[in-house]
Order: sequence, then structure tokens, then C-alpha cells
Amino acid sequence: MASTSIANISRSTVEAIVRQVALEYLGRQKGAAAPSLTVQTSSRHMHVCREDMNLLFGPGSELTFDRPLHQEGNFAAKETVTIVGPRSRLISNLRILGPMRKQSQVELAFTDAIMLGINDIPVRLSGDIAGTPGAVIIGPKGVVELKEGVIRAAIHVHMSPTEAAYFGVKHGDKMKLRIGGQAGVTFNCVHVRVDATFRLNVHMDTDEANACGLHLTKEIELFK
Amino acid sequence: MASTSIANISRSTVEAIVRQVALEYLGRQKGAAAPSLTVQTSSRHMHVCREDMNLLFGPGSELTFDRPLHQEGNFAAKETVTIVGPRSRLISNLRILGPMRKQSQVELAFTDAIMLGINDIPVRLSGDIAGTPGAVIIGPKGVVELKEGVIRAAIHVHMSPTEAAYFGVKHGDKMKLRIGGQAGVTFNCVHVRVDATFRLNVHMDTDEANACGLHLTKEIELFK
Repeated sequence: MASTSIANISRSTVEAIVRQVALEYLGRQKGAAAPSLTVQTSSRHMHVCREDMNLLFGPGSELTFDRPLHQEGNFAAKETVTIVGPRSRLISNLRILGPMRKQSQVELAFTDAIMLGINDIPVRLSGDIAGTPGAVIIGPKGVVELKEGVIRAAIHVHMSPTEAAYFGVKHGDKMKLRIGGQAGVTFNCVHVRVDATFRLNVHMDTDEANACGLHLTKEIELFK
Repeated sequence: MASTSIANISRSTVEAIVRQVALEYLGRQKGAAAPSLTVQTSSRHMHVCREDMNLLFGPGSELTFDRPLHQEGNFAAKETVTIVGPRSRLISNLRILGPMRKQSQVELAFTDAIMLGINDIPVRLSGDIAGTPGAVIIGPKGVVELKEGVIRAAIHVHMSPTEAAYFGVKHGDKMKLRIGGQAGVTFNCVHVRVDATFRLNVHMDTDEANACGLHLTKEIELFK
């Protein structure tokens, strides 16, 4: 304590005040004492653009709501496709998530990608697909050859600006996520995505969830 | 520095001496400056006992050497089996690792286990199979119904007593393994296994290797 510099005291005091204010704000808004963190596992899935939707499911077709996802407005659709990898290996029943997006994108775990023969799948944030591998997608009404768009989604956490203030982070920062239990793992590169519509939760893929035995523990800690 | 207690200095000095002696010893033995750490990915596999070998491949049959593994005397055999899960789902070409053991044991990643429908697969150290799930194993000459023995192997590091002295750990301890790169992960529960015949290397399964993008980085650090 005695050796802490004035600069450090000042900074930590400011952070503590911001955290307290954010906490009180969150408490007033949601009746909770602190942000409640959930971690969700994203299985492999696809996002489709309007043009590819037309080709795969027919002109003017729409996604059919199946169940809601944690982020407001997002949903798992009833529609599924088949993805074909470079050596004619395929994965059927690849779920489409709605709503439609500007660009089609396939998100696979490494295990899925290796099974398909896409060994050079890059780790990317959703939407950042320039120069990524492509694949052939088969729908009930037609086939699309994606030139690019197959990624492994980087582990990330969604949060509101108030939650970001609470954690002392901003959009684009990286945080750490410690999962306890007997297969305990700390993910060191959790990308922070801040938006007024976001609810606090972490998205990881099936490899990450299986590696850390996410289903075996309730011990979850998100920190800078 | 000034605030470090004498007890701490004493302990850290002892540890530094042990590390230095171990380092010099390793240097003399192998001509290397420090223990060279390798991390290997264990794909799903099976170990067989003599009795099950007889049933699966015929009485008196032996495992055929295919390629050596990192730990001395261990090898991948040419022989493979098929494992059948509770809902008649199966995985073919499950490799057998030699030599034969006292008990048959199947080591799967969670992804494999979930695919087979063995959702309650426990994380265990090799050989610790009491009360674990069983499975049906099909070989070219017969079928074995394992009553138990299907596990997810806990991540572990093999090392010699000298290497253990270098790291300041003993058999049964846990260490941490940090894998760098853009999917960077720290495994917090790496079991230490010490034996005079062991060579320093970490064994992780395919889920763990895929989660941390092991193939994407050379940044590897093992620590207490």
C-alpha cells in the first residue's frame, strides 16, 4: 500500500467510481446488484444475404423463426443448408441464423473445418471475411458457391456501454474469461463488442466449450 | 525488493539453486540449455488389455507397430476398432495405441463423446476408470462390451524427475500451460506426471488443441 504511487491511486480511484456509478445504474435498470454474465456456445451456423437466400430457398423467400437467441432480434431459423468442403466432404443440417445480413458467412469450429478439409480457416470477428476460404452451399432450391466467408468466429463478449463502463473496457478491447472446474481454462483473447442493444454474454464455439468443459462448471469470471 | 521477507528470499534462493542445478544437469545430459517443451495432440484412441485383444483380433494376436509416440516404448498400432455409443452411433477407425495394458480404455474428446451420445463422459487421468461409462467395441474377429473405461483424458505433462526439479513441481501437482496467438488460451489444470522414463511433453486432446489454435502458434509456456 505504502509503495503505491499517487498516479496509481488516482487511476484506481477513478475506475472504482466509474464502476460504482455503472453498478448503481445497472442496479436501477435491471434490479440486479451486478452485471449477470452468461456464456453461450455457438454451434456451427450460417448467415445468409438476400441474394443467396433467393438462390438457396427461392426468390423472395424469408427465414422462418424457430427460437430466439440471446442478443435481441437474433434468432435460429428453421432453414438449414448443406456445406460442401474442398474434398467433397459435407456437413448437413447447417443451421441458418437470422435476420439476413449484407454478406453470407459460415461460422465453423476448427473441428468442423478440419473434418470438411478447410484446414486454413482463419479466426475472425463476425463480418470480417475478406480473403477467407469459400465453400459450396446447397439449399432446397439451389446451390451457391461462396467465394469467401468461411471463418472460425473469434471468442467475444457482447455488452452495453454501461456494462463496458463497469468493466472499464471499450469496443475493440480484449478481456480474459476464466472457466473453472477440473478442465479449467482461461481464454486470453476475448474480443469486446459494445452496442446499446447488446446484452452481456460471451459467445464461444463448440471446440472452446468442449475444451473447457463448460457444461461441468458454474465458475465463470470475466476480467481485464 | 526491499519489502520481500527473509522467508521469501530464502525459499526463492533455494528454488533458484535447484533450478540451476537441474538446468546444468539437463545441459550435461542432453546438450541443451533448458528443457525443450513440446505439446502434442492426442486424437481419440483406445488401449487394449490382453483379454480384449484376444476377443477383438483373435486369440494370441499382437499389436502391429505403425509409428512411435513421443513417450519411449509407446506406439500407434496398425490395428483399429469401431466404437458404438448408446444410441447406435459409431466411430470407425479408432486407433489402438500400444503396448497392451492391464485394462482396456477409450480416450475421446468431448466432441467425439457427444457425437456418440456419451454425454456423461468424465475427465480422468489415464488408468483411473472406475465408474466411467462403457461402450461396445467391434474388432475384425469379435465384439467386446466394455463395462467401463471411456474417458476424456485430463490434459497432462510428462517429465523426468530432473525436469520436475527444474520446474519446482512433483508428481500429482498441477501446472498452467499458456498457448499464445490470436486464439490464446491458458490451461489452468495441467496434471504433472513424473517418471524416470518420461520425456518432457504435454498431451492435450483435439478439442483443446482446436480451441487454442495450437497449429497457429509457437508461443508455448509451462509454469506453476
